[in-house]
Amino acid sequence: MKRAVLAVLLVSFALAFSGMATAKDADPLPSWNDGKAKQSIIDFVGRVTTSGSPGFVPPAERIATFDNDGCLWAEQPMYFQLFFALDRVKALAPQHPEWKEKEPFASLLKGDVKGALAGGEHAILEIVMATHAGMTTEEFEQIVKDWVAIAKHPTTMRPYTEMVYQPMLEVLAYLRSNGFKTFIVSGGGLEFMRPWVERVYGIPPEQVVGSSIKSRFEMRDGKPVLVRLPELNFIDDKEGKPIGIHSHIGRRPIAAFGHSDGDLQMLHWTVAGQGPRFALYVHHTDAEREWAYDRSSSIGRLDKGLDEAQAKGWTVVDMKQDWKVIYPPAKK
Amino acid sequence: MKRAVLAVLLVSFALAFSGMATAKDADPLPSWNDGKAKQSIIDFVGRVTTSGSPGFVPPAERIATFDNDGCLWAEQPMYFQLFFALDRVKALAPQHPEWKEKEPFASLLKGDVKGALAGGEHAILEIVMATHAGMTTEEFEQIVKDWVAIAKHPTTMRPYTEMVYQPMLEVLAYLRSNGFKTFIVSGGGLEFMRPWVERVYGIPPEQVVGSSIKSRFEMRDGKPVLVRLPELNFIDDKEGKPIGIHSHIGRRPIAAFGHSDGDLQMLHWTVAGQGPRFALYVHHTDAEREWAYDRSSSIGRLDKGLDEAQAKGWTVVDMKQDWKVIYPPAKK
Repeated sequence: MKRAVLAVLLVSFALAFSGMATAKDADPLPSWNDGKAKQSIIDFVGRVTTSGSPGFVPPAERIATFDNDGCLWAEQPMYFQLFFALDRVKALAPQHPEWKEKEPFASLLKGDVKGALAGGEHAILEIVMATHAGMTTEEFEQIVKDWVAIAKHPTTMRPYTEMVYQPMLEVLAYLRSNGFKTFIVSGGGLEFMRPWVERVYGIPPEQVVGSSIKSRFEMRDGKPVLVRLPELNFIDDKEGKPIGIHSHIGRRPIAAFGHSDGDLQMLHWTVAGQGPRFALYVHHTDAEREWAYDRSSSIGRLDKGLDEAQAKGWTVVDMKQDWKVIYPPAKK
Repeated sequence: MKRAVLAVLLVSFALAFSGMATAKDADPLPSWNDGKAKQSIIDFVGRVTTSGSPGFVPPAERIATFDNDGCLWAEQPMYFQLFFALDRVKALAPQHPEWKEKEPFASLLKGDVKGALAGGEHAILEIVMATHAGMTTEEFEQIVKDWVAIAKHPTTMRPYTEMVYQPMLEVLAYLRSNGFKTFIVSGGGLEFMRPWVERVYGIPPEQVVGSSIKSRFEMRDGKPVLVRLPELNFIDDKEGKPIGIHSHIGRRPIAAFGHSDGDLQMLHWTVAGQGPRFALYVHHTDAEREWAYDRSSSIGRLDKGLDEAQAKGWTVVDMKQDWKVIYPPAKK
């Protein structure tokens, strides 16, 4: 008994001590320029973590959700998952001689991406199903891991997983060190993200919400497998985001981070809860270090969301002004 | 810097100290009689948490999944969620005069539960949809909370949330204190469980996987709501359990706890992974303190699963022999 009491005292003392050191010595968001955006994050975290204050939120309820494409990593000139799908079409082409005559594959294999995507949503869906279904979940995980390990972005020539936003990595870590659980809530594919987000963002697979296709349970030679089927299960975008959040997390986030109109319903859903709430839009304003786009972009359009953010006083990050760096330093 | 080092040293020392005290002083499963079942749990936990041993599993991968009905709480003479649905039919009857003439409601309202359920799955689905859909998710949460607070089991006269298995509460706590994340994976309704499982089992809503109906996002007077629709979304039973686990958790459990053939696929999926694995069946053998049923029961049938457990050497809990108590002491 005495031992236990002593242990508790020592832990409390040590934690208090380490807390003091952190608060005094370190800027939790070193890649952010001082300004309204940075301050709003720090103020919110201070408010919900100050025990005894009216804004205090118990750790179990500190749920923060993050969009992925355009919010945690880049998404230009097109979603990175689409680059993955195109690379898979090339890799699978020898097994599909019929693709030479069949759109959207024929154009793709001739290097005419624009022509292939001219078929719109239907063409994209065909490419996605041809490259994302038909294998077991374990096989798909390995395919994604292999691709992520070697694929390079066409203009920066960096691995895609290095095109993540350093300032957002700091927000993730800062929230977690303040008792938050951080979730991804993305229109991207659930199983395209899971193989790498833990390593890259520190977000475990069980904290990823995304779009998905159906799968089927089978016993193969006495071994259970899940086979990925070419059938949509759930689209985690727009109205889908609050539905995905509710179905997967089961409680309302107190903070949500987005970058486009596709995140607007998630932000509405988040701020409609009681108590302190935080909503943030990353606004892509930096044509030099990243890309500049908003109201008229076909990828990551931020139009209604920008108006709403201004009307409601949500935080809008001006990438050019607010961020000292965009990406983390290149890995050797 | 010095401060941080000192803090780390103090924490390490305190934790080592408190760990010693725990290992020496406390039985982690006091409601379990000594025997093979109890020992198998303790051996498994020891194996996966002994750092440097070949069976060591990093904390992030210590995922344990639990069936709910018949595994964490009782399920006789019928699923408790069905009692909830029947109570809701009575409460809603004044708003549905047509139910007086319409099965299965007419029989139910005359007190003839057997007659009402004679319509089988179709009748149950009608009752579920009439009582679980049509309201917002927030309204439904409140309905469940209100019911759980006052409803009593027809034979024990105890609140349903006190008909949870004390020995299993101890397993949950024991696993969590050893770095496990505990999940519910149940055929029961996701949103029927979430309002009370955190208080009762210490399992947060984001760690609940269950069956669900669809919902729709709507703005009502400028406020976003999710409206529950009378349309099945997902059945988290049998083949659905590995699918639910994969979709929700995204990694394979290393330990799974079930009680019926409906859990067999979850157990297969769990033990098919690499490294140490643990599968357990709760076998209802105690007609005096609880209920005795297995191979021929319509609720919670354990037939194929029992054979499989014996063939594979999985742990089978004999409730009568292995458990000192069934339920926690009644709350005053």
